[in-house]
Amino acid sequence: MAETARHPEPRYGNRPTMKDVAARAGVGLKTVSRVVNSEPGVTPDTERRVQEAIEALGFRRNDSARVLRKGRTASIGLVLEDLADPFYGPLSRAVEEVARAHGALLINGSSAEDPEREQELVLALCARRVDGLIVIPAADDHRYLEPEIKAGVATVFVDRPAGQIQADMVLSDSFGGAREGVAHLIAHGHRRIGFIGDQPRIHTATERLRGYHAAMAEAGITVEDSWVSLGSTDPGRVRAAADAMLSGPEPVTALFSGNNRVTVTVVRALADRERPVALVGFDDIELADLLGITVVSQDAAAAGRTAAEHLFRRLDGAGHPPARVELPTRLIARGSGELPPA
Amino acid sequence: MAETARHPEPRYGNRPTMKDVAARAGVGLKTVSRVVNSEPGVTPDTERRVQEAIEALGFRRNDSARVLRKGRTASIGLVLEDLADPFYGPLSRAVEEVARAHGALLINGSSAEDPEREQELVLALCARRVDGLIVIPAADDHRYLEPEIKAGVATVFVDRPAGQIQADMVLSDSFGGAREGVAHLIAHGHRRIGFIGDQPRIHTATERLRGYHAAMAEAGITVEDSWVSLGSTDPGRVRAAADAMLSGPEPVTALFSGNNRVTVTVVRALADRERPVALVGFDDIELADLLGITVVSQDAAAAGRTAAEHLFRRLDGAGHPPARVELPTRLIARGSGELPPA
Repeated sequence: MAETARHPEPRYGNRPTMKDVAARAGVGLKTVSRVVNSEPGVTPDTERRVQEAIEALGFRRNDSARVLRKGRTASIGLVLEDLADPFYGPLSRAVEEVARAHGALLINGSSAEDPEREQELVLALCARRVDGLIVIPAADDHRYLEPEIKAGVATVFVDRPAGQIQADMVLSDSFGGAREGVAHLIAHGHRRIGFIGDQPRIHTATERLRGYHAAMAEAGITVEDSWVSLGSTDPGRVRAAADAMLSGPEPVTALFSGNNRVTVTVVRALADRERPVALVGFDDIELADLLGITVVSQDAAAAGRTAAEHLFRRLDGAGHPPARVELPTRLIARGSGELPPA
Repeated sequence: MAETARHPEPRYGNRPTMKDVAARAGVGLKTVSRVVNSEPGVTPDTERRVQEAIEALGFRRNDSARVLRKGRTASIGLVLEDLADPFYGPLSRAVEEVARAHGALLINGSSAEDPEREQELVLALCARRVDGLIVIPAADDHRYLEPEIKAGVATVFVDRPAGQIQADMVLSDSFGGAREGVAHLIAHGHRRIGFIGDQPRIHTATERLRGYHAAMAEAGITVEDSWVSLGSTDPGRVRAAADAMLSGPEPVTALFSGNNRVTVTVVRALADRERPVALVGFDDIELADLLGITVVSQDAAAAGRTAAEHLFRRLDGAGHPPARVELPTRLIARGSGELPPA
């Protein structure tokens, strides 16, 4: 067909182009462009013919091409650990709402806690020319992002800091929150307190462990090695760690769990035991109120919203040096953290 | 600057272009293009000069432009009700994993159960030329999508069917699941059973209500109007509905809650009451095992995976007529659904 001859490159599906509209309306390409972009210089009769052709063909303007010409894609990338983790739901939704208020779409994905997958995803987003990035990092070295940041890709790190580069970041007070949670257990008479946390290369895991050690030191308690276990949040690993701390001649009388994934497994492990064991968990969990689980709560939605607002201020030209925002945590006493030592 | 003169259009940040690379390497644009795209016809020395310029400038190929030329954007859109709803976490992650296996990125957003917002989001995704769409619809009329589907945008509807158009869809057996859950309550001696569901314009809400009526009819039970309440999942609305059904001279002895959002509020409402009330909820919830909540579980991850696999089969050219896949549900007895009438 002549049609094909005029379009040597393969086109997506058989989506009509401006050329198709021009051909059908019997006008020039420039005329169609004027109508599509509401520019002057088209007679009402011609405009009607072009609009009829647009309707008949189902033509839709290609924003991808347009935004590329404008130099902005009106999209931002969100890289988090796991789309399936309920902690990231409210964070993602909060980012989405801010992006939407700025007319931007959200492209997101999971790093699966794998630094290589994080970099692959981040660079794929940059190659699509997202205007900005919000990253919950799995990696601890982000120098791979420097050319992108230099090129103007606004970048904000959330929940965990950027590694080896200067960047905006929005963090929760993991150290202070864990210290408060552990001090709460100590205030209820516990001295033998176990800490089960996420992998040691994760900033929040080590910060929360630091908070645990600070609270124990402030109470003059010497921490035994067997009271601390960092590792994957795999239920098998967490349950084994809890069982080890709760057995033997001198079991711990209380546990502090380092994040929501750890807490759900610890709560299940404790449910199987007769002897009551006190528990404070970092991160709130749906229905934790009904189970009476005392938690150190962080506001995931506030973190997402704050990060996104930072990002768009940068895109609007804010030139101040990289800022570090730390959001407070909140201890919510519901019973499990107020149990006395057995 | 000459630089600027050569780039009259505003460019994103100051991201280097092929022209910048060509200028720095002192070669022509076509030569840079050959090196970037690994095409022959460049001397080793010239290639080295170009590579050095690419390094020095931090140039990165623009995939947006490239995929536009290729006619595919290697991105798919996922439109769901609420990124913050834990039901959609595993679904999103499952879609992401299939997309990733096909080298595609995920652009997603929330319709917030608003048909206009759904259409706005879907059309924005189409304007960005996503290759395909996975939609959990809020609207009941999707004729607005016909030009896009004609143009080749593969589209799969999940959880709820498409409205007034033919399209692939992946649904859970809402009718059968609800019927089984209500029959389970009847088998445990209940006859006065309340149904609290989502808004009546939502397909899954009415299908589950149909399952409730089927189970009641099969048991020869005449349903009283006061036993059924459909509406928003707002906790205030749901709690009021539960309280109304549980008070008065002849309260219901059991409740069936129509989805996870309704269930969490009903569980809280029942926790405040002395008299035990039986409960079966549609959708599983984290920690429901520890609370002994009997549920009709649907596999959100399987729904997402199935829909995404369908989508990519379409993108790979599968031409069969629109298919409707219905995934089974599973009753999980945990105690709340096995309580006898008070």
